[in-house]
Amino acid sequence: MTSLLNRFMEGTSRRVDAVLNRLLKSKPEEPAEIRKAMRYSLFAGGKRLRPSLVAAAAECCGGKAGRVLKTGAALEMIHTYSLIHDDLPAMDDDDLRRGKPTSHKVFGEALAILAGDGLLTLAFETAAANARDCGLDGRASAELVKVIAVGAGTSGMVGGQAADLGAEKWRGRLPRARAGRLLEYIHLHKTASLIIASLEAGAILAGGTAAHRRALRAYGRAIGLSFQIADDILDVVGDKKKLGKKGSDAANQKLTYVSLYGLSRASAEAAALTRKAHRALAPFGRRAAVLHELADYIVTRDR
Amino acid sequence: MTSLLNRFMEGTSRRVDAVLNRLLKSKPEEPAEIRKAMRYSLFAGGKRLRPSLVAAAAECCGGKAGRVLKTGAALEMIHTYSLIHDDLPAMDDDDLRRGKPTSHKVFGEALAILAGDGLLTLAFETAAANARDCGLDGRASAELVKVIAVGAGTSGMVGGQAADLGAEKWRGRLPRARAGRLLEYIHLHKTASLIIASLEAGAILAGGTAAHRRALRAYGRAIGLSFQIADDILDVVGDKKKLGKKGSDAANQKLTYVSLYGLSRASAEAAALTRKAHRALAPFGRRAAVLHELADYIVTRDR
Repeated sequence: MTSLLNRFMEGTSRRVDAVLNRLLKSKPEEPAEIRKAMRYSLFAGGKRLRPSLVAAAAECCGGKAGRVLKTGAALEMIHTYSLIHDDLPAMDDDDLRRGKPTSHKVFGEALAILAGDGLLTLAFETAAANARDCGLDGRASAELVKVIAVGAGTSGMVGGQAADLGAEKWRGRLPRARAGRLLEYIHLHKTASLIIASLEAGAILAGGTAAHRRALRAYGRAIGLSFQIADDILDVVGDKKKLGKKGSDAANQKLTYVSLYGLSRASAEAAALTRKAHRALAPFGRRAAVLHELADYIVTRDR
Repeated sequence: MTSLLNRFMEGTSRRVDAVLNRLLKSKPEEPAEIRKAMRYSLFAGGKRLRPSLVAAAAECCGGKAGRVLKTGAALEMIHTYSLIHDDLPAMDDDDLRRGKPTSHKVFGEALAILAGDGLLTLAFETAAANARDCGLDGRASAELVKVIAVGAGTSGMVGGQAADLGAEKWRGRLPRARAGRLLEYIHLHKTASLIIASLEAGAILAGGTAAHRRALRAYGRAIGLSFQIADDILDVVGDKKKLGKKGSDAANQKLTYVSLYGLSRASAEAAALTRKAHRALAPFGRRAAVLHELADYIVTRDR
């Protein structure tokens, strides 16, 4: 990671963690276990990519990173809830995440489900409060909530998860072209949708134009896909200790870019998407320095 | 049910169902199964109590029921998601709900979890859109989202569910006074919180005053508790076919008003709460006719 990007992500991470800490402070009148479970997964070592995207997008549109931290926190809560539910026995059945026991392993399935529900709910409250703090009117405020809900819901992340479940039954039985389209659908929705929502949320809070938002969507689509391809590649070649899980895609014989196209074509595809991401940022000129570096980082990260 | 209340609830139900139908229309670009699962539970015969509360509260504050239907739909989605997650094997492990197989029995656990997540997400999008349609400014719009999130999240419904889980370990081992306080906490949060949120949401959309909202909160607290006590009573004495489940509280030896206080004291408590609910409506005069009748209906309903 370059020092500019490192500084930006570390700074955002520190400030977003302070916001999350405040929002998740224990309340004596609430059952202690539920907040404990929410905090456990929120503070399990995430890199705060989505908050950094919110902040960097806001800056691209002339806004201040410091004003959009709550929405960054909201997107991180949504990301975290999706990991908790995704790890459940009924879903991916993962015991470890980033080398630590998953939520249901520590707190039991029931509380893990509720911790996810609680995070998703708090996320919307937090984003709406940020819209108010930034002085957004009723229309822009509804737009912010909508962009996040579309990215997180059935048109986005939840839809991607559902397609992923459905894909199981096709395993190995689809012609390659159709398998490729299905895989792209899954990745676009499971991963890229929330990345796009983070970028657009930053733009809305900073008063970005329609052209700004279009550019950020194109950028988000490209890095969202390249992120996921890099993940598929890491699952095969990555240092398994660093990854904190045991090449579980291969063990599950999952449909991935690598299983479908092989390692070298998957790498070439990730590189092409990275070039696309850079091109999409043209309208922002120098203000997009962080996002340019992020596009490169996302395909070279170790996790 | 009186004819006034019946007309109001049937009318609201029909109009809210039309809104839900539109919001949940199948989208060819989304996996069909997820929307099917969301619709299955949404249209499983609920009485649309929460939408009726949103509408009636709006009318109490001088607003029009027809303008708050989307928020009614949002609250119904939240209620439905909570039932889907609550029925899961890891939670209450119920096979039937209103005499029909529960979501995970029909669609599998993974899709049931996702259907709940999708409904919760769509609920916030829908409420925020309603705030915009009603011309709320940024501050009132954030307040609407907050009231719903507080009612649904860890300070409300999710917190109540978590406390309910935690209560298992105390079964039969708490002194009666502490068991009573725990039980009230659970019911206030599992049930009353979302009822209160429905009423306050209606008030906010209709521009109700702080005094209006205070009165509606007191009313909601009283009917929320009496609703739950009636439920505990029905679980013991109700016609089990109408109830659609087999007295599962007794089978699970759950902490309920009946198990703690006996049938006659539980009935007396429900009656006292109903009187409290009527008194809370004083500020609205005749405009509260529907809410008065609802307070009586809630403790005499057959399900």
